Amino acid sequence: MKRDAPLRSFIDHKSDMCESDGKLFLNEAFSVIMEEILHKGTDSKEKVCEWKDPDQLRALLDLDLREHGESHEQLLQRVQDVARYSVKTCHPRFFNQLFAGVDYHALTGRLLTETLNTSQYTYEVAPVFVLMEEEVLRKLRSLVGWSEGDGIFCPGGSMSNMYAMNIARYWAFPQVKTQGLWATPRMAIFTSQQSHYSMKKAAAFLGIGTDNIFIVQADESGSMIPEDLEAKIMQDAVPFFVNATAGTTVQGAFDPLNHIADISERNGMWMHIDVTNSVTWNPHKMLLTGLQCSVILFRDTTNLLMHCHSANATYLFQQDKFYDTSLDTGDKSIQCGRKVDCLKLWLMWKAIGTHGLSERVDKAFALARYLVEEMEKRENFKLVCKGHFVNVCFWFIPPSLRGKENSPDYQERLSKVAPVIKERMMKRGTMMVGYQPMDGHVNFFRMVVVSPQLTTKDMDFFLDEIEKLGKDL
Amino acid sequence: MKRDAPLRSFIDHKSDMCESDGKLFLNEAFSVIMEEILHKGTDSKEKVCEWKDPDQLRALLDLDLREHGESHEQLLQRVQDVARYSVKTCHPRFFNQLFAGVDYHALTGRLLTETLNTSQYTYEVAPVFVLMEEEVLRKLRSLVGWSEGDGIFCPGGSMSNMYAMNIARYWAFPQVKTQGLWATPRMAIFTSQQSHYSMKKAAAFLGIGTDNIFIVQADESGSMIPEDLEAKIMQDAVPFFVNATAGTTVQGAFDPLNHIADISERNGMWMHIDVTNSVTWNPHKMLLTGLQCSVILFRDTTNLLMHCHSANATYLFQQDKFYDTSLDTGDKSIQCGRKVDCLKLWLMWKAIGTHGLSERVDKAFALARYLVEEMEKRENFKLVCKGHFVNVCFWFIPPSLRGKENSPDYQERLSKVAPVIKERMMKRGTMMVGYQPMDGHVNFFRMVVVSPQLTTKDMDFFLDEIEKLGKDL
Ligand SMILES: Cc1ncc(COP(=O)(O)O)c(C=O)c1O
Ligand SMILES: Cc1ncc(COP(=O)(O)O)c(C=O)c1O
Repeated sequence: MKRDAPLRSFIDHKSDMCESDGKLFLNEAFSVIMEEILHKGTDSKEKVCEWKDPDQLRALLDLDLREHGESHEQLLQRVQDVARYSVKTCHPRFFNQLFAGVDYHALTGRLLTETLNTSQYTYEVAPVFVLMEEEVLRKLRSLVGWSEGDGIFCPGGSMSNMYAMNIARYWAFPQVKTQGLWATPRMAIFTSQQSHYSMKKAAAFLGIGTDNIFIVQADESGSMIPEDLEAKIMQDAVPFFVNATAGTTVQGAFDPLNHIADISERNGMWMHIDVTNSVTWNPHKMLLTGLQCSVILFRDTTNLLMHCHSANATYLFQQDKFYDTSLDTGDKSIQCGRKVDCLKLWLMWKAIGTHGLSERVDKAFALARYLVEEMEKRENFKLVCKGHFVNVCFWFIPPSLRGKENSPDYQERLSKVAPVIKERMMKRGTMMVGYQPMDGHVNFFRMVVVSPQLTTKDMDFFLDEIEKLGKDL
Repeated sequence: MKRDAPLRSFIDHKSDMCESDGKLFLNEAFSVIMEEILHKGTDSKEKVCEWKDPDQLRALLDLDLREHGESHEQLLQRVQDVARYSVKTCHPRFFNQLFAGVDYHALTGRLLTETLNTSQYTYEVAPVFVLMEEEVLRKLRSLVGWSEGDGIFCPGGSMSNMYAMNIARYWAFPQVKTQGLWATPRMAIFTSQQSHYSMKKAAAFLGIGTDNIFIVQADESGSMIPEDLEAKIMQDAVPFFVNATAGTTVQGAFDPLNHIADISERNGMWMHIDVTNSVTWNPHKMLLTGLQCSVILFRDTTNLLMHCHSANATYLFQQDKFYDTSLDTGDKSIQCGRKVDCLKLWLMWKAIGTHGLSERVDKAFALARYLVEEMEKRENFKLVCKGHFVNVCFWFIPPSLRGKENSPDYQERLSKVAPVIKERMMKRGTMMVGYQPMDGHVNFFRMVVVSPQLTTKDMDFFLDEIEKLGKDL
């Protein structure tokens, strides 16, 4: 006993924060979150962002991490500051990315997930979520039209795309898992010029190399030209993977899936579909689950996902467990600890049903159509092209450029318009929308309507505000 | 106007859930979360898990996703059910993984992150978090002893390890990004037999292949034997990467870092350190930030992370923005959307300071030492070996096996003990601790002490409970 005394007393007298103080803080912070983000942050009369230059913001935030901790009041102020200077992505004027808005059931699922804080690797530590993931994946597959298959939630669409490419490679050349790419012929990937940059990241990360991506041309609307795909399939590299996009990042274009499927089949290629729309695999975009919620679904029924990724760690995936260890699905992942990403989607789905989800998609399409029709009535908006989806790509033509299409510096001057309007918009904080150049088109805005909270008034405001911001240009 | 009427009315009359109902639900669900998880879930008199067989649990949860949504009351019940049947990883008797316990400031950071729901790719959508990540990374590097360098938050330690391997490969052979592995000689990776399985996953995923991992022997305590590393470096594959572990998964062993560093340098290899301890890069383990919070730090100052991973997407990383675009750090990532993982760590750090963090680590070490000392006093516990860290690996020797070390079926019978005790423990729900076999050692328990809420009483309870569960074996 004597020998133990100092150790015992060191342990038992080291008082970490007591539980009740912790809960009090959490409760008060929750009120701040409700007020600053969910109340003010969704109010169209408030700013969508409180723009500060990096140096100003650094000074305001006092980010430095020190030897000693701070008081309850100081810490609550920090919560307030973080909320205040962050962009309100739930604001009705946030159109800057492919996500926007807030769904309160999904958000509840996220808070529940964070508080339960478990990892999705074995049934013993995540019984509810292993079964829930299985059910959500089954449902998503059925919406894609598959009665069987496999799948997994991933940390984002880019990772989902990497999974697809890796599984396709393993399907084509299983020896790659053990022997690496030195044991295979050079492989070729096909994807459209309008596909997402995650294809490049995947090819580089997987050791295939970006030179082995063959870029297929797209038409004016952003859709892959299948004839060009056929023409590009050559024989010095083995064609193994074709990526078709259903909803491209900028224009929201759909590649001709059936035509591409025929070509893939004829050439023995794996066809992957990268989608950002609502019936399939990036629910953290248009379905409003919140980041991160992305899924990769496979039609395969031979357990490729497990064969390709398993490492059989004995400390986690013991085979002498007292329950069915096929429920320890963690070895299908390239991760070890894996965040629970299914609950937010599941709870939202329970709340509004498949019906509610499809209504949201219909509403987003209607909003995009309304916006296009309104733009066509105004002389200072010009569409880049008619879109397939909820992306509306357009130029604002300021007064000084109207009717000057034929002047030699027109394109050059037009390219400067969007960045200036964007800067003014951010500094006023009234709304956020992105712009980019693309294949011979100078900078244009990409408006994305996602949030079901929006009305036609919000669309009218959007057009009026762009006109206001650019009226002297 | 006439033509628009149906479209306008379709949009404006499609009422999604109204804001106030959403907030009400969130508030009520938050009370359930507080009560069921943070109040009951941390009470040692309550169960750590409510074990159900998969079929029972499926029936209890009604996971099916239907056409129509459910009522407010039904949905609240779902929140309650998810909480009830999930494992309470914040419970004082949860020792099953390398994470446990709850920190209320980190949890606040997580709820704030979920509600703000932004992606960490550009300064314009994540101004606070871009600067915060920069500061947290700087601080973590300084604790490692580096005054310069780079780094990034990743979705978990396995991904961090993959980043390291990919950056090392690019550093050795930059052509790999464009031309793939067909343009390089075969490469070799060195890691100890006790290292984490993420090394295998990384080698397979990156196209290097698991056969090109050369497994270095470890001593009894789990530490890499540097002489064996030297002996294994051969010349038919280019040695480019050595992984040293500071805190192995099972035994918590530290590889001899300095010795390995010398060997790496002499052989022109990149040396990576995979750590699960508190001064470095998996704060979601011993530092209690909650999943996911993992960081990969680089000493490199040549912007390798960007060169290796960039894809230069023009729609996201426009160069004509009105602010310093070097703050759009997203292209360093292999992801596109990237969850904010720095805030939880930052807020907790602000709350307890570096001092509070190190006190927690000291306390965990003291708890592990106390546990070892107590085990040594009891005849039915046998340590696998003296540990380096907070992992305590041991066998429980049940009455029927005591003094039978020399009988021929001793090992065989001992191997059955841990699974039986684990099953009984889960079904009673009193505590959770993991077991595994390892290199000639039959199944033993791995006890990990992490949570600062624990006292010596909890350790005494742990030992008593194991004895109680195994007394008839
Ligand atoms: C030594 C070591 N490295 C890496 C990992 C993987 O970390 P994560 O679960 O965050 O992927 C672990 C997980 O236990 C580990 O113990
Ligand atoms: C077509 C497409 N695929 C993949 C992605 C990547 O998704 P994430 O940001 O979840 O990685 C995006 C993101 O915008 C996308 O538009």
